[in-house]
Amino acid sequence: MRIVVALGGNALLRRGEPMTADAQRANVVVAAKALAAIHPGNELVVTHGNGPQVGLLALQGAAYKADEVYPLDVLGAETEGMIGYMIEQELGNLLPFEVPFATLLTMVEVDPDDPGFKNPTKFIGPVYSEKDAQRLKADKGWTMKKDGDKWRRVVASPQPKRIFEVRPMRWLLERGTVVIAAGGGGIPTVYEPGRKLRGIEAVIDKDFCSELLARELDADFFIMATDADAVFLDWGKPSAKAIRRADPAAMRSYEFPAGSMGPKVEAACRFADSTGKQAAIGALKDLPLILKGQAGTTITTTAHGAEYAP
Amino acid sequence: MRIVVALGGNALLRRGEPMTADAQRANVVVAAKALAAIHPGNELVVTHGNGPQVGLLALQGAAYKADEVYPLDVLGAETEGMIGYMIEQELGNLLPFEVPFATLLTMVEVDPDDPGFKNPTKFIGPVYSEKDAQRLKADKGWTMKKDGDKWRRVVASPQPKRIFEVRPMRWLLERGTVVIAAGGGGIPTVYEPGRKLRGIEAVIDKDFCSELLARELDADFFIMATDADAVFLDWGKPSAKAIRRADPAAMRSYEFPAGSMGPKVEAACRFADSTGKQAAIGALKDLPLILKGQAGTTITTTAHGAEYAP
Repeated sequence: MRIVVALGGNALLRRGEPMTADAQRANVVVAAKALAAIHPGNELVVTHGNGPQVGLLALQGAAYKADEVYPLDVLGAETEGMIGYMIEQELGNLLPFEVPFATLLTMVEVDPDDPGFKNPTKFIGPVYSEKDAQRLKADKGWTMKKDGDKWRRVVASPQPKRIFEVRPMRWLLERGTVVIAAGGGGIPTVYEPGRKLRGIEAVIDKDFCSELLARELDADFFIMATDADAVFLDWGKPSAKAIRRADPAAMRSYEFPAGSMGPKVEAACRFADSTGKQAAIGALKDLPLILKGQAGTTITTTAHGAEYAP
Repeated sequence: MRIVVALGGNALLRRGEPMTADAQRANVVVAAKALAAIHPGNELVVTHGNGPQVGLLALQGAAYKADEVYPLDVLGAETEGMIGYMIEQELGNLLPFEVPFATLLTMVEVDPDDPGFKNPTKFIGPVYSEKDAQRLKADKGWTMKKDGDKWRRVVASPQPKRIFEVRPMRWLLERGTVVIAAGGGGIPTVYEPGRKLRGIEAVIDKDFCSELLARELDADFFIMATDADAVFLDWGKPSAKAIRRADPAAMRSYEFPAGSMGPKVEAACRFADSTGKQAAIGALKDLPLILKGQAGTTITTTAHGAEYAP
């Protein structure tokens, strides 16, 4: 089977942990162990988040020369190199030496008229005082919004339209290469007049991008690995129950938090609907069981309504 | 022809320029124009330096949290993403849309017993006072050496032994993909007991790494693009003359500066000697003429001694 696994940002850098290289690597080792368990007999594509890492690079840049902080597309490219490197090295250490690896820089087309640009909602980077926020708005043209009692920059989160490096990924998979790609949702790019690509300061949802990648690569299974065991109804209430298997219509009839489970469920539904193949959401450690439908939440058009875990 | 072009660090960020993303991109556009001119009819691999960029990332990290500066292997991976992204985007903008691109993270094996580790000589990062240098030596185990009247960190510059991602690069080239790889000389890695790969804090000479890559990819032509028009004898003297074409033995009979032209000449000689194919050193803008042997310095075993430019 051809499997695309999307690693959640928290799988790589947990909230509250110091953002050191060692801490990141330790988490990558955990993720690599889970991924290695599902490699035998399968073609594997690994995507990953980059939120905390981009935030850190922005802070580092600002601490050095605030006026020369690199734009988000460039920071995203840096994190694709950094995180991809750690995954390639640590997963490579667990698989037979003969398995080829390729970590690919990934650019993703977005529509400059995407409604996301009219109302940016994705918080990025550090918090600021109102005064600093106003200055940054004036100096850099950033959109600033209130986040609690502080201010933060917001950028658009446009939908991914096309992944430019899909053909190389396909050729590599055909040769048995483990492909690491589309880190951080890929680098958002738009066509300028004259058909030139230009990176823009936006953040593509990692799960939506991974879903598009899974679809364009004709993946048989698309898994979003996270720190939740499954998709739950009534999460946090005594009536909470895990969905084991459901069809897209059933999943879309529920409401999930916009910032976390919502996009994952929507990405899974898109994949199942458009391909007829299975998508799943579950815990990193359960990857082998998720593949068998024995853990996590599987979303597939062959389900009838929703079934719950025992 | 299969051509490997190594872009010098100064081709991407010139001395004295601000290290902004815009300045880097402007230089990448210039390099992309030169590369685009030699793409038609050829298979193209682009490698690049990363010295100024790694230095900048180290400074940014130190300005934020000095104790959490990322190690060199991780910073190298970041620059492979960042610089590769700019090259892929800008060169892609100049070639037909159908041409596939792949920017690959590249790990390179070095020997932990390489003599370079006994006497590190490669200056990296900022200059320090003697007091700070002694503290960093004690705190971080860095090797510090005097650079003028200040102190700087030095790391080993071991020889590249093997490039791990060569097979994927080969498969991609066979499909007509422009491959961008081995940025900054690749990420130096060693085998630890138990045959696990681990990144180390060292810098592989970019030209030596590019030469190994050209050899392992069976390249027909290996070009090091720099800001000099050719290799000169008696550089800076009235008797200065440019070498147009020479055999490796003739080139090795001269002495060239260790920090700049020396490694390029040695890399070119290695390639010509071991493959029987041509290597060249010349100006980025002259790439099409260099391919025809009408500019730069060509090193080939089919030359007899050294011929000078008219």
